[in-house]
Amino acid sequence: MKVVCLAGGVGGAKLVQGLDALELDLTVIVNTGDDFWHWGLFICPDVDTITYTLSGLADTRRGWGLEGESWGALSAMRRLGAEDWFGLGDHDLATHLRRTAWLREGVPLSEVTRRITQALGVRSRILPMSDAPCPTIVNGENFQTWLVRQRAPAVRSLETTAGPPAPGVQAALDEAELIVLAPSNPYVSIDPILGCIGALPQVPVRMVSPLIGGEAVKGPLAEMVPVLAGRPPSTQALLDHYGFAFDRVLEGPATLMPTLEDRVRVARALL
Amino acid sequence: MKVVCLAGGVGGAKLVQGLDALELDLTVIVNTGDDFWHWGLFICPDVDTITYTLSGLADTRRGWGLEGESWGALSAMRRLGAEDWFGLGDHDLATHLRRTAWLREGVPLSEVTRRITQALGVRSRILPMSDAPCPTIVNGENFQTWLVRQRAPAVRSLETTAGPPAPGVQAALDEAELIVLAPSNPYVSIDPILGCIGALPQVPVRMVSPLIGGEAVKGPLAEMVPVLAGRPPSTQALLDHYGFAFDRVLEGPATLMPTLEDRVRVARALL
Repeated sequence: MKVVCLAGGVGGAKLVQGLDALELDLTVIVNTGDDFWHWGLFICPDVDTITYTLSGLADTRRGWGLEGESWGALSAMRRLGAEDWFGLGDHDLATHLRRTAWLREGVPLSEVTRRITQALGVRSRILPMSDAPCPTIVNGENFQTWLVRQRAPAVRSLETTAGPPAPGVQAALDEAELIVLAPSNPYVSIDPILGCIGALPQVPVRMVSPLIGGEAVKGPLAEMVPVLAGRPPSTQALLDHYGFAFDRVLEGPATLMPTLEDRVRVARALL
Repeated sequence: MKVVCLAGGVGGAKLVQGLDALELDLTVIVNTGDDFWHWGLFICPDVDTITYTLSGLADTRRGWGLEGESWGALSAMRRLGAEDWFGLGDHDLATHLRRTAWLREGVPLSEVTRRITQALGVRSRILPMSDAPCPTIVNGENFQTWLVRQRAPAVRSLETTAGPPAPGVQAALDEAELIVLAPSNPYVSIDPILGCIGALPQVPVRMVSPLIGGEAVKGPLAEMVPVLAGRPPSTQALLDHYGFAFDRVLEGPATLMPTLEDRVRVARALL
């Protein structure tokens, strides 16, 4: 079955790994609104989290980055007076170095992503939502500055950016038999992707809710819903936010996915 | 006493450290002919070797790079199919990241070098010979490709590049009471600097020979002299190559400088 999954970072990656294990024809369209420049390198947090998770290299206990990571460059950067609020590990740096060098040569982000995912042995197709920069701006700051550096203070303003869908995105949507929304933040992960895609195709749309009992497993979603939707955080509030029909929605404690086994179970339940 | 030392990398750094310990007013004008781009970063091998040595951070046993270095990024770059013939360590990477980001912002190399040496606690003034790229080309390849990747095959052609001296170079020469040539390769370390400087001022010029009994402590000099000077390698061949008068030349086994104590002893003997 041809499945297209729209996904952000950490939460999304868990379901994506479950879908990937089912050996579907899976295309993941990933949010790039979080992408930003740091230390002169172009960082794609969501694309990398999905890539590392599907390649089996992710540090699942820490919840981000690579297993067996070391931090030599970060400590040396600190000594040189560089900003150290975003934790780039030594192995992770290789991804950003490689990507940045290719981008500077004019290679589009989608092709860069193809090369990196192929080198790391990822089976499913991972596509950035757009090859154009589509920064998400929260309270006038780029997303990672707001989330990591400022530790996600209350949202006063939120602006997402739409760009032309990356090569392969439209074809994947045209051929899709099922659309899946991963358990990612609607406002800052899924909305930016929808902005690039335009309309979803006329096939079933399913979702695993990013909220469990009104709480987010990780990230600032529960605090964002009251501000942005004017009501308490709930899966229904998110469905109303999207405004289109869902064929199936999974929510509740059974959608917690700490282990690969859980991820496959939830992916199976969704399908 | 105001001393200006012209120096390349590893050999030069040893004498420079000895001079630095004597608490002179020391300016080191460093070869940048070896500088090159690698992994999208601008690498300055000689400037960094001198900087790391004077800051006490150099790995003196390995003879290059930083003590306590780790190699996570290199192994991850290998996994991503990147070139791995030039060993960039994780801590070392920070220097190149910081420098490259500043250069891309338009900060000149001399100011970048000032910032890095200051952050690492270097007392003496380290100046690149020029802020302009001055690549040394051996057999049609950039210097590091020839030296490290190809392991220094016989020289068929050698081309050095002159650029305008970096800010501070001319002033240091004008005020110098003594010029010192560090034990560096005349053809690929000192000649490029002389090409940028033009004429040396009318003050005593002293040298520690990079050859001991016709052999180089490190590097390809001994093999280069017969090809480039048409005679066996000797300190006299190097003096004849320079063609200007030296006030004092140290040569022989006593100029081996593995330890800081040796370096100070030789620096004292030179002065």
